[in-house]
Amino acid sequence: MVKKILKNVEINRPLIHCITNYVTVNDCANAILAIQGSPIMSDGIREVEEMVGVCSALLVNMGTLNTQSVESMIIAGKAANRLNKPVIFDPVGVGATSFRREMVVRFLNEIKCSVIKGNVSEIKFLAGVSSHHCGVDVSKEDSVANRECLKEMVEIARRLAIRYESIIVVTGAVDLVVSRDRAVAISNGVEMMSQVTGTGCMLGAILATLVATGDESLMDEAVTAVMLMGIAGEIAFEKTSHLGSGSFRVALIDALSQISDAQVAVRGRYELF
Amino acid sequence: MVKKILKNVEINRPLIHCITNYVTVNDCANAILAIQGSPIMSDGIREVEEMVGVCSALLVNMGTLNTQSVESMIIAGKAANRLNKPVIFDPVGVGATSFRREMVVRFLNEIKCSVIKGNVSEIKFLAGVSSHHCGVDVSKEDSVANRECLKEMVEIARRLAIRYESIIVVTGAVDLVVSRDRAVAISNGVEMMSQVTGTGCMLGAILATLVATGDESLMDEAVTAVMLMGIAGEIAFEKTSHLGSGSFRVALIDALSQISDAQVAVRGRYELF
Amino acid sequence: MVKKILKNVEINRPLIHCITNYVTVNDCANAILAIQGSPIMSDGIREVEEMVGVCSALLVNMGTLNTQSVESMIIAGKAANRLNKPVIFDPVGVGATSFRREMVVRFLNEIKCSVIKGNVSEIKFLAGVSSHHCGVDVSKEDSVANRECLKEMVEIARRLAIRYESIIVVTGAVDLVVSRDRAVAISNGVEMMSQVTGTGCMLGAILATLVATGDESLMDEAVTAVMLMGIAGEIAFEKTSHLGSGSFRVALIDALSQISDAQVAVRGRYELF
Repeated sequence: MVKKILKNVEINRPLIHCITNYVTVNDCANAILAIQGSPIMSDGIREVEEMVGVCSALLVNMGTLNTQSVESMIIAGKAANRLNKPVIFDPVGVGATSFRREMVVRFLNEIKCSVIKGNVSEIKFLAGVSSHHCGVDVSKEDSVANRECLKEMVEIARRLAIRYESIIVVTGAVDLVVSRDRAVAISNGVEMMSQVTGTGCMLGAILATLVATGDESLMDEAVTAVMLMGIAGEIAFEKTSHLGSGSFRVALIDALSQISDAQVAVRGRYELF
Repeated sequence: MVKKILKNVEINRPLIHCITNYVTVNDCANAILAIQGSPIMSDGIREVEEMVGVCSALLVNMGTLNTQSVESMIIAGKAANRLNKPVIFDPVGVGATSFRREMVVRFLNEIKCSVIKGNVSEIKFLAGVSSHHCGVDVSKEDSVANRECLKEMVEIARRLAIRYESIIVVTGAVDLVVSRDRAVAISNGVEMMSQVTGTGCMLGAILATLVATGDESLMDEAVTAVMLMGIAGEIAFEKTSHLGSGSFRVALIDALSQISDAQVAVRGRYELF
Repeated sequence: MVKKILKNVEINRPLIHCITNYVTVNDCANAILAIQGSPIMSDGIREVEEMVGVCSALLVNMGTLNTQSVESMIIAGKAANRLNKPVIFDPVGVGATSFRREMVVRFLNEIKCSVIKGNVSEIKFLAGVSSHHCGVDVSKEDSVANRECLKEMVEIARRLAIRYESIIVVTGAVDLVVSRDRAVAISNGVEMMSQVTGTGCMLGAILATLVATGDESLMDEAVTAVMLMGIAGEIAFEKTSHLGSGSFRVALIDALSQISDAQVAVRGRYELF
């Protein structure tokens, strides 16, 4: 499965249209290139519709939002739906401001997403479950640490999966990939990934890249993306944790560019729920 | 002092709202994360006011200005003042264009800043002292190199400190932190820091992070921030000067992420003025 | 020649005004700094005209376009023409959308460029030659690989050089620098440069920096810029290809910051056409 998914990317080098934030946009582009995809970063309102047409998937990440980019996101999302191209949505910091909340409601009302990805706080917020969310970072109280929490989180995600007919990816100490009828918990990754900006955004970019080829099931592609990112983090940590977070960030891209399907198969730690 | 200030950040992990330029925004976010702060980059005019509400400090860096971001900066600044949260202002390239000059006049008229940081040319410009400033980089003539210049510069900064009721941070070969009644000269840092973009912006981000907790005096927090950045530069230089400026930039973040208060205490070179 | 051109930059530290995309803007700034230039990134419509006045060259890269940045590009371009400062134009992804096509037509109609740089697909598009262009990346079919293709490409570029009275730089497996009456093929560089985002943009930034001093012929300056970037890629590849694309990106800036004119003279591989 993993092998086939990664091979598909390598062969097709899918163009991934990213409307994303200006903080980590470079990391997202390099992450996509590292796994052999082809990134196009464009949010110009006059061209996003046409750009969607030449791409294989659309990533919408609302890390830095403004009134114009919101319109671009909606236009691009509608075009992707019309053209039957997968939309990956990353509602960064949805709980932080009313502008973000309104944007998310509007986006999810008007656009069908193949994958919605968020951290525990963001996903809880989408589900209307009380959270202790302040700002873009996940609250410590929300960390998915123990089995009870995991189960509860799966149920929350499943409700969203049904409501939005999407795969829901929840990131945390343990990551979850949840559909209407399946749930997989993935325990790859390292704490240090939260010490550099952009690792969440990069996962969104990788999700978009693996989903773009569309040859395997969405669920398998999403699980592979999450394992890939987590394992890249582990490899980077082994090489650079003693050096610091600057080197770790570089090593993350290194790992993504060199990781083999065999490594993913061997190191992937997932279980059905 | 240093220990307590850094410990405060580690414990509180303050959210720092940054309205900053798109050139070095990633470096600023990673610098804040490296010292255990929590960055939020947002300049959307419809959300900055609310975003200030959930954060502990506001950094306004005008490296890349446009008509909309100026309004966001003003709105956010006012909100921060109202909520009694510290504002750190970095008037990048103020002397370069009339648009920047007008922006700075307006910002300083309408908003009370806890810290104003600039290089020698920028600070001279604010003070209305003739300078040889062209563009964003500091003019060579303005380098604070000898004792006479330093004294003169302290007086210039002190006038601004009184006028704006702010701490003034002046960066150069020797850095200055000046208040109404105190002045500290810090001689950490290396020339190579001017060979990568963003070291000035990162200092602004670090200032905002240390000032955010607000438990020590502003003056002490600002001095600590300047030493921290300078020492990180020295450590990075020792490790990577033979490799080049790309590696130096990575090592800067590494150093920020690993520096201990003991190192700052031992390596800090400051004197009262 | 090479020595004199690089020396000129080192002595004059020219200010380079870049209106460029938010994906690789940091790489462009660091590339300019690495070769001792002085970058100013600014696209604010209210200040670009004035900013051009204090700079020695203008780089316009349309990687991420929006309605406002297009106007800034036009205003800045006209100002540069009026002040007799070189304009370097990088029509990224011109074939991808009608918005980009319209922008390029308008820009080239209204502004005289010293250098126009593009990959094979982009240059073919400008020349109205059929291509297999989809998105920002060059189509595989368009790769300039064999002698026949090279000759044809030189003719296409020459037509543009005459039409726009510009130097045309075509990037590919072999790079071309073409004027009305000269053509040089440069075979430095490595494939890995296409696995990180921004190497094309960085070449634009380096072209602007070398052209800014204006003491040598435009042709010689452009050839030197292309060799410099290609050789930096080779050096970076030798040091980091086993590590991955994250390290390669860092090593590219390292190489640019340490490369000597002697290295360029020894490693430069060019031939007249």
